[in-house]
Amino acid sequence: MTKGRLEAFSDGVLAILITIMVLELKVPHGTDFAALRSLLPVFLTYVLSFVYLGIYWNNHHHMLQATARVNGRILWANLHLLFWLSLVPFTTGWMGENHFAPLPTAVYGAVLLLSGVAYLILAHAIVAENGPSSQLGEALGRDRKGKLSLVLYAIAIPLAFVNQWVSDAIYVVVSLIWLAPDPRIEARLKA
Amino acid sequence: MTKGRLEAFSDGVLAILITIMVLELKVPHGTDFAALRSLLPVFLTYVLSFVYLGIYWNNHHHMLQATARVNGRILWANLHLLFWLSLVPFTTGWMGENHFAPLPTAVYGAVLLLSGVAYLILAHAIVAENGPSSQLGEALGRDRKGKLSLVLYAIAIPLAFVNQWVSDAIYVVVSLIWLAPDPRIEARLKA
Amino acid sequence: MTKGRLEAFSDGVLAILITIMVLELKVPHGTDFAALRSLLPVFLTYVLSFVYLGIYWNNHHHMLQATARVNGRILWANLHLLFWLSLVPFTTGWMGENHFAPLPTAVYGAVLLLSGVAYLILAHAIVAENGPSSQLGEALGRDRKGKLSLVLYAIAIPLAFVNQWVSDAIYVVVSLIWLAPDPRIEARLKA
Amino acid sequence: MTKGRLEAFSDGVLAILITIMVLELKVPHGTDFAALRSLLPVFLTYVLSFVYLGIYWNNHHHMLQATARVNGRILWANLHLLFWLSLVPFTTGWMGENHFAPLPTAVYGAVLLLSGVAYLILAHAIVAENGPSSQLGEALGRDRKGKLSLVLYAIAIPLAFVNQWVSDAIYVVVSLIWLAPDPRIEARLKA
Repeated sequence: MTKGRLEAFSDGVLAILITIMVLELKVPHGTDFAALRSLLPVFLTYVLSFVYLGIYWNNHHHMLQATARVNGRILWANLHLLFWLSLVPFTTGWMGENHFAPLPTAVYGAVLLLSGVAYLILAHAIVAENGPSSQLGEALGRDRKGKLSLVLYAIAIPLAFVNQWVSDAIYVVVSLIWLAPDPRIEARLKA
Repeated sequence: MTKGRLEAFSDGVLAILITIMVLELKVPHGTDFAALRSLLPVFLTYVLSFVYLGIYWNNHHHMLQATARVNGRILWANLHLLFWLSLVPFTTGWMGENHFAPLPTAVYGAVLLLSGVAYLILAHAIVAENGPSSQLGEALGRDRKGKLSLVLYAIAIPLAFVNQWVSDAIYVVVSLIWLAPDPRIEARLKA
Repeated sequence: MTKGRLEAFSDGVLAILITIMVLELKVPHGTDFAALRSLLPVFLTYVLSFVYLGIYWNNHHHMLQATARVNGRILWANLHLLFWLSLVPFTTGWMGENHFAPLPTAVYGAVLLLSGVAYLILAHAIVAENGPSSQLGEALGRDRKGKLSLVLYAIAIPLAFVNQWVSDAIYVVVSLIWLAPDPRIEARLKA
Repeated sequence: MTKGRLEAFSDGVLAILITIMVLELKVPHGTDFAALRSLLPVFLTYVLSFVYLGIYWNNHHHMLQATARVNGRILWANLHLLFWLSLVPFTTGWMGENHFAPLPTAVYGAVLLLSGVAYLILAHAIVAENGPSSQLGEALGRDRKGKLSLVLYAIAIPLAFVNQWVSDAIYVVVSLIWLAPDPRIEARLKA
């Protein structure tokens, strides 16, 4: 089974998710700076979610680059990941429009956590099909970033009910961890 | 005639349908658990429709994998299938926002039934072009799942006016039948 | 210059246009047959526009199948066609929601006419690059369907202010002309 | 690392952006010419933004045609470009619905400027990976259009608070500079 359509379909869904999020940035009625300023929380949440979806697209791209074969289980594990990511525009809109209120902040983190778990399940399904000694099997063994992210999300979710700004800061930190280039992967791919 | 653009176009339409359905999950005004709970019927309908569109994408992917040639009739049979699937976001929204009322539940099933019939027409158009002894021709002969689904939808539609929960349960059951992996197809594809 | 991205981009735009049109089919407030019946004009217009966009995708697919080389002029001629087609969801919504009133009916036809002209310009740009004796050059010479459609649109637009139902009937007739398979093209492609 | 998915994802995002912009062209309530005329500012802004996104797609297409290798930095530079372009539907809607008021006109230009800068960063990232003597390295050296555009945007933004019509005229002029075919690039690609 070829992986071409899996990539094309995932690219399509991620491209649309990234783009419909911007629809939450509703055209304001006024035309002064105050009207623009009132959009700031929605805009900042949009930037954060754009970066997260960009990270997922980037990692998905790398992971499938290293995948030789796909099967039915992988197709469904991929759809499962896309399901949780499809909720990001909703949680982005809810958190942004409510100026980072506690519950929306916690739900935002919960969707990130479930997306991270779904990504892990997908990675394991790919390794199970392609062999633990495959290029991806090795990469997964040292997936410290992925595991650290899940732990940080799990901390941020209950913290949102104590102080949501700490949770929001954690989400920003996790995104920065992923934005920083990983020299080992780049080096491997060049070699 | 190559099948590349048929696949790309169908992937595009299915990716967009799956994604615009989430727009029915409108950002609530409140920020408490009650606001979240009020979204539950829409969310559950979204999950069901996401699974259905995922099943169609998955099956479409398998069917075209086994297709060698396409013609004008196949292009239109494919557009006919996409037409009925394009109504899924509408029926999903109508059923979810009205807490599974009888008529929306029946219409939801009618669109599933017509999509199933359109899929059958597409499969027959592909077999007519590629020969009954082709890989797909054999697969179609034993398409018991597809025929059973059509019968179950046809039962669920009138039942919605007696007790819509039975109909909804039937829709869930049909989706579970398809979610379960089919060992024979996987085995064939591996061989 | 490869034609791959031209096809991919056009497929993307057409897939999205076909799909966002369905957003005009707004979820009704009621749950009875009257609520469903009130959607009939919007639904019928949706069906007509779906068929038209399907015809354009189909013909675009055939035309580029027969194209060897693309250049900058072809890219812009293609964007020009996509521009007019991008207005179809708007004219569809306007005509459907106003129960086929005269002006919306005329504007619907005007966008069809301008799309048809844009298609002709694109076809000529492709022939200019690929030579009049190319496969497409010959196909264009006998493009009687295309020319007839433009004449019929040009008749339907002013007629909308006399009796819009005649104009609507003309739009349906033109779509049926295109839906009927063209045995010569299929025969050529098989040979 | 192959560039196929980078192109596919960018095509997807650009196709969606171009298409959701048309959603700002809301179906009017009336059915007379006055209703249509009231849409004129939104329509004109839509045309301008459509042309701009078309130019970006066109240039992106040419640039990647001349690219041999991509790396992680290029993927992120591309996402950065798509981020600014994703704000075009918002600025288009804001400027169009407010009949070219000063602040929306300035913000429209700011997003064009930042998109232009992001395009330049992407071009430099590609040259850094593919070598200054690559086909793209040479093309970038003579990128006078790109630099002139950035200067013109930088002039138009503050001017919007003096006379926004001058700014709007500058945006139109820049788009016309890009629409005119560049005989050198076409000649190169033919050779």
